[in-house]
Amino acid sequence: MRALSFLSLFVLSSTTALAAPKNVIYMIGDGMGPAYLTAYRYYQHSNEHGTNASRQAVANTIFDDLLTGMASTYPDDDTLVTDSAAGATALATGVKSFNGAISVNRQHIPIGTMMQLAKQMGKANGIVASSQVNHATPAAFVSHNVSRRNLNAIADMYFDYRINGKPVADVILGGGTDYFVREDRNLITEFKSEGYQYADSWQQLDILTRKPAIALLDNVGLPAALNTKQPRQLATLTEKALQLLSPAEKGFVLMVEGSQIDWCGHDNDIACAMAEMHDFAQAIAVAKAYVDANPDTLLVITADHETGGMSLGADGKYLWLPDVIQNVTATGRKIADELNAASSDEAALSRWLELTKIKLTTEQQQQLLAQRGKEQKDLREVAVALIAKYSYTGWTTGGHTAADVPLMAYGKNSADFHGFMDNTAIAKQLLRYISTSPQ
Amino acid sequence: MRALSFLSLFVLSSTTALAAPKNVIYMIGDGMGPAYLTAYRYYQHSNEHGTNASRQAVANTIFDDLLTGMASTYPDDDTLVTDSAAGATALATGVKSFNGAISVNRQHIPIGTMMQLAKQMGKANGIVASSQVNHATPAAFVSHNVSRRNLNAIADMYFDYRINGKPVADVILGGGTDYFVREDRNLITEFKSEGYQYADSWQQLDILTRKPAIALLDNVGLPAALNTKQPRQLATLTEKALQLLSPAEKGFVLMVEGSQIDWCGHDNDIACAMAEMHDFAQAIAVAKAYVDANPDTLLVITADHETGGMSLGADGKYLWLPDVIQNVTATGRKIADELNAASSDEAALSRWLELTKIKLTTEQQQQLLAQRGKEQKDLREVAVALIAKYSYTGWTTGGHTAADVPLMAYGKNSADFHGFMDNTAIAKQLLRYISTSPQ
Repeated sequence: MRALSFLSLFVLSSTTALAAPKNVIYMIGDGMGPAYLTAYRYYQHSNEHGTNASRQAVANTIFDDLLTGMASTYPDDDTLVTDSAAGATALATGVKSFNGAISVNRQHIPIGTMMQLAKQMGKANGIVASSQVNHATPAAFVSHNVSRRNLNAIADMYFDYRINGKPVADVILGGGTDYFVREDRNLITEFKSEGYQYADSWQQLDILTRKPAIALLDNVGLPAALNTKQPRQLATLTEKALQLLSPAEKGFVLMVEGSQIDWCGHDNDIACAMAEMHDFAQAIAVAKAYVDANPDTLLVITADHETGGMSLGADGKYLWLPDVIQNVTATGRKIADELNAASSDEAALSRWLELTKIKLTTEQQQQLLAQRGKEQKDLREVAVALIAKYSYTGWTTGGHTAADVPLMAYGKNSADFHGFMDNTAIAKQLLRYISTSPQ
Repeated sequence: MRALSFLSLFVLSSTTALAAPKNVIYMIGDGMGPAYLTAYRYYQHSNEHGTNASRQAVANTIFDDLLTGMASTYPDDDTLVTDSAAGATALATGVKSFNGAISVNRQHIPIGTMMQLAKQMGKANGIVASSQVNHATPAAFVSHNVSRRNLNAIADMYFDYRINGKPVADVILGGGTDYFVREDRNLITEFKSEGYQYADSWQQLDILTRKPAIALLDNVGLPAALNTKQPRQLATLTEKALQLLSPAEKGFVLMVEGSQIDWCGHDNDIACAMAEMHDFAQAIAVAKAYVDANPDTLLVITADHETGGMSLGADGKYLWLPDVIQNVTATGRKIADELNAASSDEAALSRWLELTKIKLTTEQQQQLLAQRGKEQKDLREVAVALIAKYSYTGWTTGGHTAADVPLMAYGKNSADFHGFMDNTAIAKQLLRYISTSPQ
């Protein structure tokens, strides 16, 4: 399988004197529709002021400070609603494709990706994700497949696909051991034999001292930000990636995905989503500080699509209560597991109260208890519906929507990412920079 | 009742050499959350290309061309979700207040408004709305009341409140005869005696040849854009207002509200909403052309809040079908009235098919017919729910949500309206211009 070459595409632009940034940091909040930014602002405000009172002026978040526009996300099919694979393909290649596609076009021909172009141009590159590193979004930056579901084949391509004799990605940080260490193949052994340093725990992260390097810190995705005791997961990985990529003489391209914002959205789990937004915001702070220290760097942040049709306010009530969400200390999945594991209904209700601080009516208690002993999903759905009800959060779907997504930019050439853009226009501008920046 | 004076507030800024625009056109899409812009883009695309296929590149709308950022809308109370009165108060005065407030603060003291400041500074000003002209949004630009519900008192204040011996607004165009020609008072006679020209029909609009002028073209709001045969309602009124205000030597401030986008949102009526968005878009095109011809004019467009928690895609389906919406040629209210008026169930179903082109299942037909002969609302709710279902449009509420809203700017000093802003910051910047522009 050979990727189509970009080089002809960029001959024209590379002859013009484009003052391209040396480094690009590209951050993607998976599922992060515009209401997620609004929600996170008031959630943070509630955290700082102890109540949901909006009588105090609400402080900007880092998203607000960096916002420059909005982006459309429609895929190359009849749906208008993209999945993460088609969304990431657009963001990584500048070309729209069908839902499910990992950087292949409608004819199933591979489309050259941003990280492949970086490699071609002698620049370093890396991917960081809170999902498995071969999940749809990071996958579209590095590999090609007709289906995002072929996770093993995608992992294989991370090693097998070569540019100048080397794997594409110089730095790979996230989860996904299940796909890289399999019965039929141990890709980690192969990466090590190719000179990659490897870490498999947060404690070991310090052994990564130079690129190429790979860290897989969980079997599939990293733990949900709301459930883990590991603070600043994505920020820690972003710091490590920047440390490893920063010495690259010809600059670097780093993609950082806040992967699980989307997963919370699919679950219609607002407390889960806000914790992932906070984890992502902390990673953005790391990237912004890097730009401040290295002004020849461009930071671009966007989302691939909106998840859940989330709204602040529901059912005719002019109210949204982030303090209710602040009090919830576990995801719906964890709440379901713990309530299922409780020794009695009484113990389950007591655990509910500890984890959510929400005092249920007798009828609501019965609704919750009726789902004990069934699938995690059954209990989880009732739990998150109750949290939605008490916080006045609305959801219209367990899937994605076609909403435009926020666009943020900072640093060198950030003025090129203002106003309304299509997702492919964002990618094309970045590809131009990567092909023309100082060699 | 006396408005607090702005003048002290602006002493500082007026001493700095601020190159303020001579004219300001301020357009507010009531209820126009970010998903309304996305929806309108694909609705227009579907109109032009006959199907919902997103395989053709989707053209920008005028909203996309002018987009510069997003704005927060939270009011000065504990809800985070604003109503139109508090939203308009923030947009007209730069000060947040409580839901229901018409340019009064929490202590019920009037806050000076943008049009009052314009009048103080010797500039002309006008309001245009597709609602009654004394509805919450225009009301907050001209008058003061502790409650938006006091529509007669607000209408009275349009005439009674004086600055330099004259009513505040020089041009007033929209609906609302019911509030201005009442048994207890005929404000139109009074306005005429004060020198205002008056028109009460679209045909008569040409008799308005100079300010001051007032036109009330319907008893309450104007007809819904989807139902009326009068094309370009808001665009026509915007053209007229600009014609009347344009000769003003010291420039003008014009507020134009697309009032009924919100009303469609409250009804969860997507076809109604898209028609109102189109009506508003046509008015924006008029304003943009004016700026092109008069470069000393600033155009700012935003919304007061989002209505309905609308999403493109619902119920787990990765799909939104604007072509379904294009086929609907009446609002839910009109559909309900016509189905109620039909001579038989068979005639009602036949009329449904004519008005919507949606072929219902037998079960859905029964759902619809079961509401015949009841309140308009009962039948309307089933009708719009069916349109939502077939188009995969999601709604979470019949009220408002706290979503950030789009911000657009064009023309002189438009660079000051970029990125994320609070609604009060938009107003404060405009107030600065109005107080400092060339006298």
